Amino acid sequence: MSAPRPIKTRLFTPGPVEVPPRVLRALSQPPPHHRTEGFRATLLAVTEKLRALHGTAGEVWLLPASGTGAMEAAVSNLMSPERRALAIGGGKFGERWAGLLEAWGVPHQTLEVEWGASVDPAAVEAALEQGGPFDTVFATHSETSTGALHDIQAIARITRARGVRLVVDAITSLAIHPLPQDEWGVDVVVCGSQKGLMIPPGIATLSLAPWAASAIDQAALPRYYFDLRKARKSLAGGETAFTPPVSLVLALAESLAMIEEEGLVAVHERHGALSRATRAGATALGFTAFAARPSHAVTALRPPAGIEAGAVVKRLRERHGMILAGGQDRLKGVILRAGHMGAYDLADIQALVGALGECARALGGPAPVRDPVLAASEAWDRA
Amino acid sequence: MSAPRPIKTRLFTPGPVEVPPRVLRALSQPPPHHRTEGFRATLLAVTEKLRALHGTAGEVWLLPASGTGAMEAAVSNLMSPERRALAIGGGKFGERWAGLLEAWGVPHQTLEVEWGASVDPAAVEAALEQGGPFDTVFATHSETSTGALHDIQAIARITRARGVRLVVDAITSLAIHPLPQDEWGVDVVVCGSQKGLMIPPGIATLSLAPWAASAIDQAALPRYYFDLRKARKSLAGGETAFTPPVSLVLALAESLAMIEEEGLVAVHERHGALSRATRAGATALGFTAFAARPSHAVTALRPPAGIEAGAVVKRLRERHGMILAGGQDRLKGVILRAGHMGAYDLADIQALVGALGECARALGGPAPVRDPVLAASEAWDRA
Repeated sequence: MSAPRPIKTRLFTPGPVEVPPRVLRALSQPPPHHRTEGFRATLLAVTEKLRALHGTAGEVWLLPASGTGAMEAAVSNLMSPERRALAIGGGKFGERWAGLLEAWGVPHQTLEVEWGASVDPAAVEAALEQGGPFDTVFATHSETSTGALHDIQAIARITRARGVRLVVDAITSLAIHPLPQDEWGVDVVVCGSQKGLMIPPGIATLSLAPWAASAIDQAALPRYYFDLRKARKSLAGGETAFTPPVSLVLALAESLAMIEEEGLVAVHERHGALSRATRAGATALGFTAFAARPSHAVTALRPPAGIEAGAVVKRLRERHGMILAGGQDRLKGVILRAGHMGAYDLADIQALVGALGECARALGGPAPVRDPVLAASEAWDRA
Repeated sequence: MSAPRPIKTRLFTPGPVEVPPRVLRALSQPPPHHRTEGFRATLLAVTEKLRALHGTAGEVWLLPASGTGAMEAAVSNLMSPERRALAIGGGKFGERWAGLLEAWGVPHQTLEVEWGASVDPAAVEAALEQGGPFDTVFATHSETSTGALHDIQAIARITRARGVRLVVDAITSLAIHPLPQDEWGVDVVVCGSQKGLMIPPGIATLSLAPWAASAIDQAALPRYYFDLRKARKSLAGGETAFTPPVSLVLALAESLAMIEEEGLVAVHERHGALSRATRAGATALGFTAFAARPSHAVTALRPPAGIEAGAVVKRLRERHGMILAGGQDRLKGVILRAGHMGAYDLADIQALVGALGECARALGGPAPVRDPVLAASEAWDRA
């Protein structure tokens, strides 16, 4: 008799993430028409909560797109062929900024960062001093491809001091790490729905700090679907410029209520604990954290010598029903990535590191240096 | 004692539409990760069914956007500042093509069409002969703002004969009217999800006829999020270029199964009956059809003299729980619009025209020339 197979799929992917049952329930309501008083009230309430979450007294818009759509909107609404940009690399998503700038004909330079490292703020400062003048810096808060967290607060201090604009991809950091946009001095923050916001993909958000309000008024690049001037005009009447994904907006209203009930500080602290616990459990098994300064959204792990990352991902899926991600691009086969954004808690991580232990054993890994589940549990408690 | 209030909301809007319960159930499944074998199989199966629905042996892509996003994709992937376009007007959505071309810096001319009329194919021919050369014609199949159907078959005959490309907005015509893309000779067809496809908004589709496959290879306009070359490359591996709205894809798989079960010809015929029945019922009450050649997606009605369109919409909503749309832009206050795309049948239309009769009576309309419900029922039967 062979061992029973898993009957459930557990997502530990770096998005989409597990969607809580009450959010699924909200999602499956008969969708309302978007040009009704009821939906306008929902949209405005959601927008208000997003402003608090983005940490801005400025404007926030919902865009009917995935996160990359909001990244494109930032480029096409702010930039022009005359405005030079500095893109901070360090992973697939940092490099996506450079790809977008290239596609949109915006002159730019990329600050190369070793994959897995977090950019040294002094290197940003040096690039601005030596390679400038730059109009805008495009950065990533949590680099999903490497699991590295970049120090946006320090970067913002540098850009603000020089009157350079800062656009931040917070797709896997919003509702995971603190990112008080106005307080830190970030001009634009973009996010997607299928990460810390705990709903399925299909909504992107973009916030504009109050001092940057006029930044979208004039731009020389073509824009229509992502024209934020249209979004601004429509939102004044409680609407979006183009038909919004109404079902996802209802789901978002529910997930934002959950975040409010738990409290944003508690949500941030829980993600810190998820990250610590995952690393502690994995480390006990001989895995090593790939990122020097780990994001609390996704834990990137190098397997112990002799074990292939892909084999671990495969065994986790087939034997344990757990979906993790491998490495992307140059990290393919090098790392595996466990996402823990949104509705995850200690029990999820104990299950994960328990399964990871089984895989390591079966695949001929080293003896654990200690019990991974216990290690995860203790790390969870340690603030 | 006042009359009881409605306890249900019935959408007769020109999108979003009523979503069938089994589609809502599909929508509320725990969302899968998109880079898994299971989801790849779903995406490829959905794409195959969409190819049949679009009537093309060419390519179809799902875009994470509303319909306007696919319209923008058609412009940015096909056009350049050197390629002149002819946009066919006649309503808010026909004029959206001109707006997009303007925003994207594509030289263009608009063929003005009276709102409510369908363009005379001879006028398209004359415009091509006299105003040319044009590279591409942008047209609308079903004009949602006026309820008019344009004769795409005739227009395609004209464009094909001249080697001019034709791009068609089929947002409110796909799965409602026949539009056999390859047979008619349409290069590009774009659609949205919240109309004949019966799911909530958030997915757009774009199909490229086989002979037009290379049309997206070279273009001089910036594109990244909507770069169809990326979509093509990703779909070869069963994926989308950027995270797809997975929950909506599951819903779409279900609604496409429903269309298949009913049969596409039957679906088209049912929409014809919905359109006839709505007009017959409304005409019996003294309303007049606004469009000379009515779309089967949406019935635009002018109220009898002395009744304001807005008052009818308001009373339908407040007393009957039915959400209809008013006129847009220059048709505001002139017409009301009843959408009947997707999961609607005779009983829905009888309820609608019954309610319309109550409104007309209460608002001081003329005596009905005959029983509107009976008129609707008879028109339903008449093929």
